Amino acid sequence: MAKQIMTNAFYMATPAQSWAGLWAHPNANGQHYNDLEFWTDLAKTAERGLIDGIFLADGLGANDVYEGRPDAVMRSGTMFPINDPMLLIPAMAAVTRHLCFGVTANTIYEPPYLLARRFSTLDHLTKGRVSWNIVTGILESVAAAMGREPVPHDRRYDMADEYMDLVYKLWEGSWEDDAVLRDKQARIFTDPAKVHRIHHAGETYACDAIHPCEPSLQRTPFLYSAGASGKGIAFAGKHAEAAFLSSSDMAFARHVTDGYRKAAVAAGRAPDSVKVFNAATVIVAPTEAEARDLERQYEEYSDTPGNLAMVSSWIGIDLSKYDPDESIEHVEGNAIQSILDAMTKFNKGEKVRVRDLGRFAGIPGREAFIVGSTASVCDTIVKWVDETGIDGFNLVRTVDPQNLTAFVDLVVPELQDRGYYKTEYAPGTMREKFSGAGARLAPDHYGARFKVNASTAAPAA
Amino acid sequence: MAKQIMTNAFYMATPAQSWAGLWAHPNANGQHYNDLEFWTDLAKTAERGLIDGIFLADGLGANDVYEGRPDAVMRSGTMFPINDPMLLIPAMAAVTRHLCFGVTANTIYEPPYLLARRFSTLDHLTKGRVSWNIVTGILESVAAAMGREPVPHDRRYDMADEYMDLVYKLWEGSWEDDAVLRDKQARIFTDPAKVHRIHHAGETYACDAIHPCEPSLQRTPFLYSAGASGKGIAFAGKHAEAAFLSSSDMAFARHVTDGYRKAAVAAGRAPDSVKVFNAATVIVAPTEAEARDLERQYEEYSDTPGNLAMVSSWIGIDLSKYDPDESIEHVEGNAIQSILDAMTKFNKGEKVRVRDLGRFAGIPGREAFIVGSTASVCDTIVKWVDETGIDGFNLVRTVDPQNLTAFVDLVVPELQDRGYYKTEYAPGTMREKFSGAGARLAPDHYGARFKVNASTAAPAA
Repeated sequence: MAKQIMTNAFYMATPAQSWAGLWAHPNANGQHYNDLEFWTDLAKTAERGLIDGIFLADGLGANDVYEGRPDAVMRSGTMFPINDPMLLIPAMAAVTRHLCFGVTANTIYEPPYLLARRFSTLDHLTKGRVSWNIVTGILESVAAAMGREPVPHDRRYDMADEYMDLVYKLWEGSWEDDAVLRDKQARIFTDPAKVHRIHHAGETYACDAIHPCEPSLQRTPFLYSAGASGKGIAFAGKHAEAAFLSSSDMAFARHVTDGYRKAAVAAGRAPDSVKVFNAATVIVAPTEAEARDLERQYEEYSDTPGNLAMVSSWIGIDLSKYDPDESIEHVEGNAIQSILDAMTKFNKGEKVRVRDLGRFAGIPGREAFIVGSTASVCDTIVKWVDETGIDGFNLVRTVDPQNLTAFVDLVVPELQDRGYYKTEYAPGTMREKFSGAGARLAPDHYGARFKVNASTAAPAA
Repeated sequence: MAKQIMTNAFYMATPAQSWAGLWAHPNANGQHYNDLEFWTDLAKTAERGLIDGIFLADGLGANDVYEGRPDAVMRSGTMFPINDPMLLIPAMAAVTRHLCFGVTANTIYEPPYLLARRFSTLDHLTKGRVSWNIVTGILESVAAAMGREPVPHDRRYDMADEYMDLVYKLWEGSWEDDAVLRDKQARIFTDPAKVHRIHHAGETYACDAIHPCEPSLQRTPFLYSAGASGKGIAFAGKHAEAAFLSSSDMAFARHVTDGYRKAAVAAGRAPDSVKVFNAATVIVAPTEAEARDLERQYEEYSDTPGNLAMVSSWIGIDLSKYDPDESIEHVEGNAIQSILDAMTKFNKGEKVRVRDLGRFAGIPGREAFIVGSTASVCDTIVKWVDETGIDGFNLVRTVDPQNLTAFVDLVVPELQDRGYYKTEYAPGTMREKFSGAGARLAPDHYGARFKVNASTAAPAA
């Protein structure tokens, strides 16, 4: 059987996200992002199409590098305003049975004891269909919002490693599997002898408590991480059960995918224990001509300053300071060189101008950009998976719900016909569905050593 | 028209709460508290019965004063394990239109910038049907869980006052009313000129940010507070739009209710700007005999050590150290005297023994305990409201859903017949439904001074 391609619908609780301005397209519903129905309808469409998950990215502040202020993203409704994504999940879970949910939460700002309770609660309410996208990022603007000093990059990962130790202890080590009896005859809910207090006193965090939630199906939620730095990749190799990247370049995607798998091996895990998703903007229609027409429409509604503002925050450089016709070779900054290389490669050696970074389909190299008829889109999707070793795609939001509906109605059935897409959901929790293994952390996962009653001979990190 | 009595169903995300052990009753569903359906069914029953709100209390740790460990509450499923209550609201909101939601969150532990976003998100998703029960409490066990030093009582209220200033600034002061255009023709989502950065640099908190959420219907969620100390009552007078208490004694309830209203006046507000709810355990059946039979059943399933453990945490004294037959006059401690007085009064001068504090119906004085036929229960409820000036009741959970269903099917129609209960929900947001005034903070509320564009002549605190 061919490899089964996995898909996440990639969303944020905001009017428009990866492509600035598209909420304004006549068929776009992004302006209703405050309504529960927007999210429950999305979930129902996704489950109808056997989409694996809704992946909820997040940002705790507006992108304000461009022009030194957030005006461009606010005008274009791009990632701002933005609501708390976690609160969308219970309503989406209530109208679905198999669809899984990923949600981003930041280790720097969320107190670990409270975060552990939130994820246990979600894991209970969803019957094990939840995952945590671990981020450690600290925008200066968010640090200011939180009244905190920014934490240097490497230190953040050290803190996140300790944070993970603490939440693993709470999730895996506090309650024995048979601690909860629910015995109405004996009138005993919990056997206290099988519940253990966690003692953590580390460099950054301290906790002396029983985890307040009984064990959920997954206990530790399924874990995403997507660090790109050396520290970030090592962190993903140790903790992540899924990772994601964003690239238009198959060779680069293969390189990153291999990097995650090597990092997993370095952490004592099987190489395929990290599922890898690449971001893809997919515009599909029954015919090539119709797809190209949609692309032209989307380009027409795409907002150039908004896109430039997003790229400015991404690379940490205020692109408003450059002549739009200037080559990006002249843009200076620490982060720019590898991005520049990728963009130039994407442009097949043609000069990339600053204005190109704000063009629809023209944030060169940012993600797979796949436009065409059902058949040609499926050809490209299959080629991506076959040639890069990725497991699937984070489907980038464009004009919704039109965009996801087209994927569900056109691409999924064609991929099923070709043997590349499941015809029904696998049973069980998110971890079982995504990894094919059990509901709990795999024995070779670092977090498994914190299981109560686990052998002290648990594998080393 | 008679005063319209208001009601909240008083819940926690746990198997049993105010009465230990009752989850084990054959008709109780409390053991399903991890399931979304438990909560959506509850919400539907409540809305069917024109209950005003689901009030979600919370506790961040197990009660462990009794015996110096949480065994008694764990065995009896009482307030432990406990999930995050906030995550229940989106699913309940999705299946209701008018039911309102109160949820407890602690100013000591929840970072204000993140809490403000969570409540704005909930206010959007519920279309203005959410309220925050502000608590500042700090159990030693929770401080240890959070890796924090306990904060002294009065200092906590000073911190909470500053916390409120900050969240009012975010909710009321960051976005002008017409900042969000949602103009698809002009392709402008937000007019950045009408969005303002908040600058707060106080003794405890700092924040330099735009509030990440656009204005919701209520902006500041409807506010509950229930402090009983001098500082706590003054805090409620300044901030609370609803308060609650727990007493079996009408004279005491009138005293507390008057105290909240005087505190509101002292803060420059109208006396009726604080709605007051008293806790009530109501056991009702068509006949007196049936109600007494239910009471006997509940008593039979009520767990004495669990109840004693809750009272021990409440009064801060380990009751396991006393002979069960000893008079509570011999129990020593700072908190005990007023409680002792109330309990003795409740017992009509009879000696109250330690074991009585663990008896069903026999945590003397804790709340209104109303058992009987529909007619007699309604008589008592009306008497409570007429004689104490309270606005309504927090209906204490016993054996659910049986208990709430009986209230909805028996008490509500009878109170409607007597003219004491609404026959349909009022339109609008929680604040409009509960206060009868507008969706936004009243002009005489302290938080109103933080409204952007508000007159600088806003009333003084």
